[in-house]
Amino acid sequence: MNISSHLKGVKNHSQYSKLFICFLLGITLWVLAGTNEVPINAWRIFAVFIAVITSFILRPFPIGMMVLTGLVILIASGTITLEESLSGFADATVWLVIAAFLLAGAMINTGLGKRIALWLVLRLGKTIKGLAYAICGSEFLLATVMPSNTARGGGIHAPIVNSLAQSLGSHQSNKPDRAGIFLSLVGAHANLIAASMFMTGMAANPIVTKAVKDVYDIDFGWGTWALGAIVPGLVALLILPHLIAKLAPPTIKDGHLAQKEASRLLKEMGPISRNEKIMAVVLILLLLLWTTKFLHGFGTTTVAMIAVIVLLITKAQSWKDVITNEMAWDTLVWLGGLLTMANLLLKYGFIQWFVENVQASVGGVTGLAAILILGIIYFYSMYAFSMLTAHIAAMAGPFLAVCFTLNGQPYVAAAVFAYFSCLCGCTTNYSSGPIIIYFGLGYVTAPKWFSVGFAISIFHMFIWILVGLLWWKILGWW
Amino acid sequence: MNISSHLKGVKNHSQYSKLFICFLLGITLWVLAGTNEVPINAWRIFAVFIAVITSFILRPFPIGMMVLTGLVILIASGTITLEESLSGFADATVWLVIAAFLLAGAMINTGLGKRIALWLVLRLGKTIKGLAYAICGSEFLLATVMPSNTARGGGIHAPIVNSLAQSLGSHQSNKPDRAGIFLSLVGAHANLIAASMFMTGMAANPIVTKAVKDVYDIDFGWGTWALGAIVPGLVALLILPHLIAKLAPPTIKDGHLAQKEASRLLKEMGPISRNEKIMAVVLILLLLLWTTKFLHGFGTTTVAMIAVIVLLITKAQSWKDVITNEMAWDTLVWLGGLLTMANLLLKYGFIQWFVENVQASVGGVTGLAAILILGIIYFYSMYAFSMLTAHIAAMAGPFLAVCFTLNGQPYVAAAVFAYFSCLCGCTTNYSSGPIIIYFGLGYVTAPKWFSVGFAISIFHMFIWILVGLLWWKILGWW
Repeated sequence: MNISSHLKGVKNHSQYSKLFICFLLGITLWVLAGTNEVPINAWRIFAVFIAVITSFILRPFPIGMMVLTGLVILIASGTITLEESLSGFADATVWLVIAAFLLAGAMINTGLGKRIALWLVLRLGKTIKGLAYAICGSEFLLATVMPSNTARGGGIHAPIVNSLAQSLGSHQSNKPDRAGIFLSLVGAHANLIAASMFMTGMAANPIVTKAVKDVYDIDFGWGTWALGAIVPGLVALLILPHLIAKLAPPTIKDGHLAQKEASRLLKEMGPISRNEKIMAVVLILLLLLWTTKFLHGFGTTTVAMIAVIVLLITKAQSWKDVITNEMAWDTLVWLGGLLTMANLLLKYGFIQWFVENVQASVGGVTGLAAILILGIIYFYSMYAFSMLTAHIAAMAGPFLAVCFTLNGQPYVAAAVFAYFSCLCGCTTNYSSGPIIIYFGLGYVTAPKWFSVGFAISIFHMFIWILVGLLWWKILGWW
Repeated sequence: MNISSHLKGVKNHSQYSKLFICFLLGITLWVLAGTNEVPINAWRIFAVFIAVITSFILRPFPIGMMVLTGLVILIASGTITLEESLSGFADATVWLVIAAFLLAGAMINTGLGKRIALWLVLRLGKTIKGLAYAICGSEFLLATVMPSNTARGGGIHAPIVNSLAQSLGSHQSNKPDRAGIFLSLVGAHANLIAASMFMTGMAANPIVTKAVKDVYDIDFGWGTWALGAIVPGLVALLILPHLIAKLAPPTIKDGHLAQKEASRLLKEMGPISRNEKIMAVVLILLLLLWTTKFLHGFGTTTVAMIAVIVLLITKAQSWKDVITNEMAWDTLVWLGGLLTMANLLLKYGFIQWFVENVQASVGGVTGLAAILILGIIYFYSMYAFSMLTAHIAAMAGPFLAVCFTLNGQPYVAAAVFAYFSCLCGCTTNYSSGPIIIYFGLGYVTAPKWFSVGFAISIFHMFIWILVGLLWWKILGWW
């Protein structure tokens, strides 16, 4: 056996061991059905759900595949019907995310995303901090419609950050501290802040919206989500470059070589194309319609679909682009399947049982204080997870349920768990696709990443609790 | 302007003219809402449905895109809710087709489909008629699980037919009558017969199942569909090579050079791979489970999903294969959207109105005779359509509704429209993907294709009406 096939064997072996652990956990829980007061089918769904979430952490196989496997086990065992298992694939939020993935694909294909980022660098990049603001601004603008923080961070910004750092004479092995460390950290953390600010900022965000709906029966949709985040989010983005400049000071101050590089890259792109213009108009249309629902009544998903149709009919994107957008279809399966399970946990009485039990066993702290304490625990529990999606899927619902039992203000609870769900990705260097990519650029060492990450986590606590609570008070959320 | 951009301009122009025609037709119908007894929203759905079907015929843009556009118009106009518009994406039949597309992809990727076809050629191909039987047999076997007749005909068989013809010294410009004409015709017509025999034989077949359910409230699912077709279908496949040998006689009788070519191609493929073996086991498992529902109770879709999961966990296919299977996701959108519209036409009362009106205006012929007359009209109306899918989507539902009002036996009516829906593709050289591909091989001229096609249509009438009725009598369907 040669080395490569040996390695493959080891990989296979470890993959199947991990899968086995997930199955074992699921089966163990499964057989415990009936030993407690949870309705048997609700408990079985819970068993499969936990096994699936565990597979998100251990990653024996891609998450979409594990969700599908979980659903098939539930159908084949007669726990749920086929129709129930498919319901998530017709969920309006899932199709909002799919539409947003299609828009994100068009942003990359038309080149408009890249052009906006480069243009901001050209405007703001006189100094190294200006460059950092350019990245923050670009993340903010693009997060409004690009639900894949990986596409945004990894597809658009990380390559630009890399080429800017290089043009400033900062290389992985030679003077990374000149600009590379600073810019990678700004890019990564700006990505997470932007992800937290919009329901369409990250693919898994709708899971929180769904949990809020299940627990509190209130809509924490695109508009409400953005409204609650806009003030603390912008404050965080404004301070971030300064903070990181303290934590990992760039040794160069001047940014004009990076500006030159941006100008070269822009020239390489040529004049604004017809498709970019259409994309720009569609984006403006999209944001206008999203923020003026009170005038026309079109829901968020409907508006996103209209935008997709406009891009298709004007040929700014082709139908082929749509059906080959693998991230969109991957998300359909995992997000749809996960929402199905969440729905069923509610429908079959698991959530109710959970809430009643928590209600019976906790006491003392209630209201706002309870939300904040739980929020902080939720935030730092991310250290135990390998990815944001698993963390959200496993923890957001139960934590919100506990807030509910402790009489936490609904909108504040929703806000804390919605925003912390993305922000907590700051803690590690493997929490989310773009974080892995930024870390993978190779400027920042792992210890540095963790120490800066921890400092940023404290920063988030201050901003989102202090500024956040103030803003949410003004909004009348408590 | 250079020629290519001029041509592009012409193409654009004609595309938008066609789109305009569809819109105009839709709007004209739309404004007529309220001028008849049809509930206004039902009529509006009908208007959009007709515009979408027209777009299937004129083809300004891909069909999935037009279905999506139709849905968005219905949502944005407030005719239907967003939730209603998405319901088709959670339809069990749609997911059966998606699962079957994933299996079809695995059949092609693993090479098993090609190997089965070549192996049959090696076994049966001593004579030219033997080669024809090899193709018929392979189409039959693969149609059980490959729902894309295009993937089956165009992806697996047409390339083999072409290389067999060449190896027999038959080329497009030199001695096409030696073998090329004969084999292309056999391949094309065998493909349609195989498509008609299984609900999973062609992607649009479930539309008939759905219409049967709507009109008669009976299940004409995978098992029933195959049961009704197995006898007439096999008789048709047995006679087909002889008939085409009369209509377009091959001048060569000996097939052993083709056998040598098949043997060479098989050698090129190497020994049966691990993935092919897994695929073969999964196929057998699939057919066993599909035909033994009475033992275990698993539905068709559940079984197909189990098969997909087995292929994924054994790594005979990867998750990447799943999410990049563009035909599957294209089908999700167009088939899901179309079933949604069909559902809504029923729900909002259009079908009822239509049936009542037909009931009031027809008389005379009833029962079996009515089914057969309508079936024949349905069959030959294909001449007016550019593709099978459009024909089925537009005509199958209404014709079944008329059969219902004329007291046609439910299962016979279902059978006639189910099987004729695919068989009628024999009439033209552009009726379906694989037909276009076989015609595109270049052996058969258009006039020849049409004359042979017409003869085959008469052949189908005899087989499926005579043998069919006899078989359906035995089954107790009338």
